[in-house]
Amino acid sequence: MFTLAELAALVQGEVVGNGELPIHGVSEIQHGTAGTITFLANPKYRRFLAQTKASAVIVNRRELLQDRPGIVVENPQLAIAKVLGALQPPRRRPRGIHPTAIVHDEAVLGQDVAVGPYVTIGPGSEIEDGCTLLDHVTIAENCRVGSGSWLHPFVTLYPQTTLGHHCIIHAGTVIGSDGFGYVTDREVHHKIPQNGGVRLGDRVEVGANCTIDRGTIGDTVIGADTKLDNLVHVAHNVTLGRGCLVTAQVAFAGSVRVGDFCIFAGQSGVAPHLKIGERAVIAAKSGVTKSLEGGKTYAGMPAREIREQNRRDALPTQMELFRKRLEAVEAKLSKE
Amino acid sequence: MFTLAELAALVQGEVVGNGELPIHGVSEIQHGTAGTITFLANPKYRRFLAQTKASAVIVNRRELLQDRPGIVVENPQLAIAKVLGALQPPRRRPRGIHPTAIVHDEAVLGQDVAVGPYVTIGPGSEIEDGCTLLDHVTIAENCRVGSGSWLHPFVTLYPQTTLGHHCIIHAGTVIGSDGFGYVTDREVHHKIPQNGGVRLGDRVEVGANCTIDRGTIGDTVIGADTKLDNLVHVAHNVTLGRGCLVTAQVAFAGSVRVGDFCIFAGQSGVAPHLKIGERAVIAAKSGVTKSLEGGKTYAGMPAREIREQNRRDALPTQMELFRKRLEAVEAKLSKE
Amino acid sequence: MFTLAELAALVQGEVVGNGELPIHGVSEIQHGTAGTITFLANPKYRRFLAQTKASAVIVNRRELLQDRPGIVVENPQLAIAKVLGALQPPRRRPRGIHPTAIVHDEAVLGQDVAVGPYVTIGPGSEIEDGCTLLDHVTIAENCRVGSGSWLHPFVTLYPQTTLGHHCIIHAGTVIGSDGFGYVTDREVHHKIPQNGGVRLGDRVEVGANCTIDRGTIGDTVIGADTKLDNLVHVAHNVTLGRGCLVTAQVAFAGSVRVGDFCIFAGQSGVAPHLKIGERAVIAAKSGVTKSLEGGKTYAGMPAREIREQNRRDALPTQMELFRKRLEAVEAKLSKE
Repeated sequence: MFTLAELAALVQGEVVGNGELPIHGVSEIQHGTAGTITFLANPKYRRFLAQTKASAVIVNRRELLQDRPGIVVENPQLAIAKVLGALQPPRRRPRGIHPTAIVHDEAVLGQDVAVGPYVTIGPGSEIEDGCTLLDHVTIAENCRVGSGSWLHPFVTLYPQTTLGHHCIIHAGTVIGSDGFGYVTDREVHHKIPQNGGVRLGDRVEVGANCTIDRGTIGDTVIGADTKLDNLVHVAHNVTLGRGCLVTAQVAFAGSVRVGDFCIFAGQSGVAPHLKIGERAVIAAKSGVTKSLEGGKTYAGMPAREIREQNRRDALPTQMELFRKRLEAVEAKLSKE
Repeated sequence: MFTLAELAALVQGEVVGNGELPIHGVSEIQHGTAGTITFLANPKYRRFLAQTKASAVIVNRRELLQDRPGIVVENPQLAIAKVLGALQPPRRRPRGIHPTAIVHDEAVLGQDVAVGPYVTIGPGSEIEDGCTLLDHVTIAENCRVGSGSWLHPFVTLYPQTTLGHHCIIHAGTVIGSDGFGYVTDREVHHKIPQNGGVRLGDRVEVGANCTIDRGTIGDTVIGADTKLDNLVHVAHNVTLGRGCLVTAQVAFAGSVRVGDFCIFAGQSGVAPHLKIGERAVIAAKSGVTKSLEGGKTYAGMPAREIREQNRRDALPTQMELFRKRLEAVEAKLSKE
Repeated sequence: MFTLAELAALVQGEVVGNGELPIHGVSEIQHGTAGTITFLANPKYRRFLAQTKASAVIVNRRELLQDRPGIVVENPQLAIAKVLGALQPPRRRPRGIHPTAIVHDEAVLGQDVAVGPYVTIGPGSEIEDGCTLLDHVTIAENCRVGSGSWLHPFVTLYPQTTLGHHCIIHAGTVIGSDGFGYVTDREVHHKIPQNGGVRLGDRVEVGANCTIDRGTIGDTVIGADTKLDNLVHVAHNVTLGRGCLVTAQVAFAGSVRVGDFCIFAGQSGVAPHLKIGERAVIAAKSGVTKSLEGGKTYAGMPAREIREQNRRDALPTQMELFRKRLEAVEAKLSKE
């Protein structure tokens, strides 16, 4: 429970109305309830502002509030993220090392490491200060988990996997599995041993049931501050830059190199050995089949610059126009 | 082992031929074997009817049987489902609570709950009567699993996950993981705390290795009788209606609302914040990019009504026709 | 550590330069380091040959080496696979049966079977000689795992799953889950019991977090030497031939039959009940909607022969040409 004034201080915003107003939760603007605070960020939801039953609203312009209590800040979405953090029910953390956890004698655990039931940690692995490993997490040999990281149930780290500081890995994700590499010789697929590792930078978050393969030679690398949604596939020797956002069910084929701050929308994919420049945006379901310059938006299969893709989508309209012109020509000729 | 007459009684159908015929199994019509019963539902398989070696056939019209033994019912596929149920080898259920299961003192278990080895259940969680939790299932705090539900190995329920009665969750599925939500401010992706939960209705079945994220504010909701295939992704704050069928590798982005009885074919996807009306059908690999009316079939990327999509697929044929007309015009003009 | 001559003997190639040269690792040609050997297979990387810092290079033509030390072989990629195998750090194998593993009295384990912590094996299951089951692997009743197979953490085998000899199954993969089968009768989706099993041939490798469903009647079958990448979905009653290569996030719908030596590139999919002939190649993101002859390459949604798909991709260019011709005709007519 906070007062409106306390929340305004938290988000460094300006209180409008009664600062003593008690706020016990956050609600969505279209489902606002008394005693909660909501926010307006997406203009699609502006129509709910007048009738929301929330007791206060976070906005970016004072006049939006009219006579309602609220908070004015530059970035309402960032403010609500902070409020949600303050109101978040604390997630249960195991106390110390659960007696059923199997930690190898040659593993090293830092201060204040929480290890849940049925966790296993192999020799040569190091879990740094303040990490949380929930139930059944399995860490093989020679891994490193940076300080403050949080691994959810059933995460697997294969050998030689390194996570940076403050990483979050969601349940069921597999990091370090063998890359898909075979040499086919006389109809026999010979497995190429996958001897590299995986390195994740600081503050990387990986969703649930993702797969990140180890490198064949050298490592698969995910840059600091990059965030992956669920069911994402990262093949061997991929390099993702810093600060990328990768939505659900995206796939990167082997040896792809992606620059910093790229965005991949859902179900898009990139073919092997390509390079994507920084700040490129790849639309949902696109398939990248050649290297792309940064700073632009691409769509389609094969992925093209968005305006070229839009031109293609307009082909039937253009065709209809041509049909009319052709008919006019035909009519004119038949009269002659 | 059943007699043909017993099976006919089970499916409320009419016996044709010797009711004493012993039936010990079910076979596919194209691979029929003596002593088994098969069925004809898909007309593609009608050509196998004459030569199948199955001892009896379930059909929907008596004349299809000619002089073979069989059963006549309105819906042969429904009948074979019942026969398969009668002949199904019983799945092994743990007896009581396995000694290695870790059930928190503040968790509540109903009557006849079967808990397999290495299961963990957190405080405040309630597992209702007749539930089955197979090996390694992990249920965090404050969850509820409705009576008669069956959770396969390695299912994860994050905190505040609620399942209805008689749900089936297949192995490796993750329910309640954090939604993919960040606010980007000056190139820093701030995580938006995901404080909501997930609610599944009664008789929901979820395939293997699916991911269903918790809501940011408010819950992600899946309606009663909705069925999800494998590797399906449901993002934060999605609402799926009742009785939907969602095939493998489909993805719903955040805050999508889907009406009752919709069908999503394989690898289709829906962009954020869209609304899909009830009884809409989305073809395989389609990408929904705007809200859609119910009761219609859509295909393509972006998804359009199927006849519009078919018209687009026919563009090359239309273009070829134009080429000929244009050539005729050119020929006529060059003669003049 | 090997000498160049020892590695040449291993790969049955010809040494060029000093055979006593010590080699302690493998590097990528563009990131070559002293003391390592690299290789040239993909012509895209030829430009790195002159400046690589690797101490030796495996090539397929002697003149490529100029005055560098190296090895000449017919297939450099196959050779490097062998070298990687020789230099691979040994993966840790559990010694015997870990005391926390729960092996049912009626399960049968062969010689030299390694079983990690928290593994569970049900009654009637047989694990043949030399198998390795890593942490938390869960094998239900009546399964068989062929000799020399290696199962990574959190693999689930449902009842009646059979693996051939020398299979490799990566972490989180689920084999034998229920197929997605319902009969809808008066708006109720009745579950069709899934009574069949799954059979994998010898030397099948399956990536991480894949899902392979059991058959409804009869088995789902994957032929010998077929390799699946990560997050692949194989529905009930699918039959994949021998030696197929299936890249990440591919989906096969129910009852699909695929011939030997087919290749499916990433994110492609096949609709139910179709047949694909042997040695067909399906391009990335394609959607197969009708049965396809073998020996050809297909692309697009719906998948068509590649040259037809390319013709479609060229439509805008063709349209532009028509526009010019139409304008010429119009100009001519307006002058008359």
